[in-house]
Amino acid sequence: NHVVILGEPERAINLIKALIKLMDESGKFIDIVYVSEFEKPPNLPKDVEFIKGNPTLKDTLIRANVDKASSLIILPQGDSASADARTLMEVVVARSINPSLYIVAELLNEGNAEYVLKAGADEAIAVGSLTTIAMANEIIYRGSLKAIMRLLRGNSEILVINSSKYTGLSFKDALIRVREDESGILIGVLRNNEVLISPSDELIIKPGDELIIIKSMNIK
Amino acid sequence: NHVVILGEPERAINLIKALIKLMDESGKFIDIVYVSEFEKPPNLPKDVEFIKGNPTLKDTLIRANVDKASSLIILPQGDSASADARTLMEVVVARSINPSLYIVAELLNEGNAEYVLKAGADEAIAVGSLTTIAMANEIIYRGSLKAIMRLLRGNSEILVINSSKYTGLSFKDALIRVREDESGILIGVLRNNEVLISPSDELIIKPGDELIIIKSMNIK
Ligand SMILES: [Ca+2]
Ligand SMILES: [Ca+2]
Repeated sequence: NHVVILGEPERAINLIKALIKLMDESGKFIDIVYVSEFEKPPNLPKDVEFIKGNPTLKDTLIRANVDKASSLIILPQGDSASADARTLMEVVVARSINPSLYIVAELLNEGNAEYVLKAGADEAIAVGSLTTIAMANEIIYRGSLKAIMRLLRGNSEILVINSSKYTGLSFKDALIRVREDESGILIGVLRNNEVLISPSDELIIKPGDELIIIKSMNIK
Repeated sequence: NHVVILGEPERAINLIKALIKLMDESGKFIDIVYVSEFEKPPNLPKDVEFIKGNPTLKDTLIRANVDKASSLIILPQGDSASADARTLMEVVVARSINPSLYIVAELLNEGNAEYVLKAGADEAIAVGSLTTIAMANEIIYRGSLKAIMRLLRGNSEILVINSSKYTGLSFKDALIRVREDESGILIGVLRNNEVLISPSDELIIKPGDELIIIKSMNIK
């Protein structure tokens, strides 16, 4: 039930630091395994398990217990000609080992997302794409970049929670109840892998829906 | 009252496309000027004004009417050794031309943010930093990455609006009123350049506050 991380050491350490900060804030802890063919980075946070080996090989991923992992994050490694191809290979190999693994891939080229998703990744996101979109938002709605950065890295979080306490309620009533019960703000519903942000007041919360909530971590 | 964009053509065109999409969605239009020492990119969207010249030079920025622009976005250009230095230079030169210009800089190295902010940028954000943090969030709160991407690029938007209609109301009452008046969800308050996400119910909206709202663009 651990997360396995592959990819270029500097990117991996940035991600691991963000992950550790978030675990500390949320109280949700998960073991982290970092796999690389390079030497163990001296600044790898302790408590992170390090596996040395070529992460495109099945043997290496099995040594990282990918068969028992809950998630795999693949970050780019190498130049723009080879990094996404390497990521694609890693997705295919990891998927063959563990059909229920949750795989998130970061790509250098957004156009490769469709191939990586077809090969078995659950999410694919291009490096810098969020930044680009956030900057465009900032020009039109000044302050939104700060709001997004604050949302992501500050003492607030976007949570996704089970809706069972709220099924049968309208979105409007659920908004009020979530504010009272969770000190959070309900912003949308995750239904059949689709995200409904700010749906109509009359939308009824159904079994299986998940609720997307924004919450300040300072107010418990 | 236009926006000037500097930086590597491929990044600039991605940003310009995101900006045009957002203008179409929001109905808020702003003229775009792209400045580069390279030839005009063949895939530059029409209606974007192109200025050829070295954007680190005062003369070039004056030709782009930076003195009358409302915003300047600087994207990285060049390798990791030189791109942020170039950006720093452009911030300094643009700030000397226009003290009220709103300057957003995208950096290759997050550690350079402090220098660029000291030199006069209003916002500085590292390429990929949002992606890294969003992926870390996804491991802890599965579904949040999709929610963030959907928020940023889907038919929903984070808006920042004037609070004058709502001053004197508690956050809790403003939440209900914003839902009714704007079909949006109030998630926080921008006060003195500080972002308060999901503050206490009792926080009173003050003159000068701005409201951060999440809204679906499909529901007018
Ligand atoms: Ca956070
Ligand atoms: Ca959008």
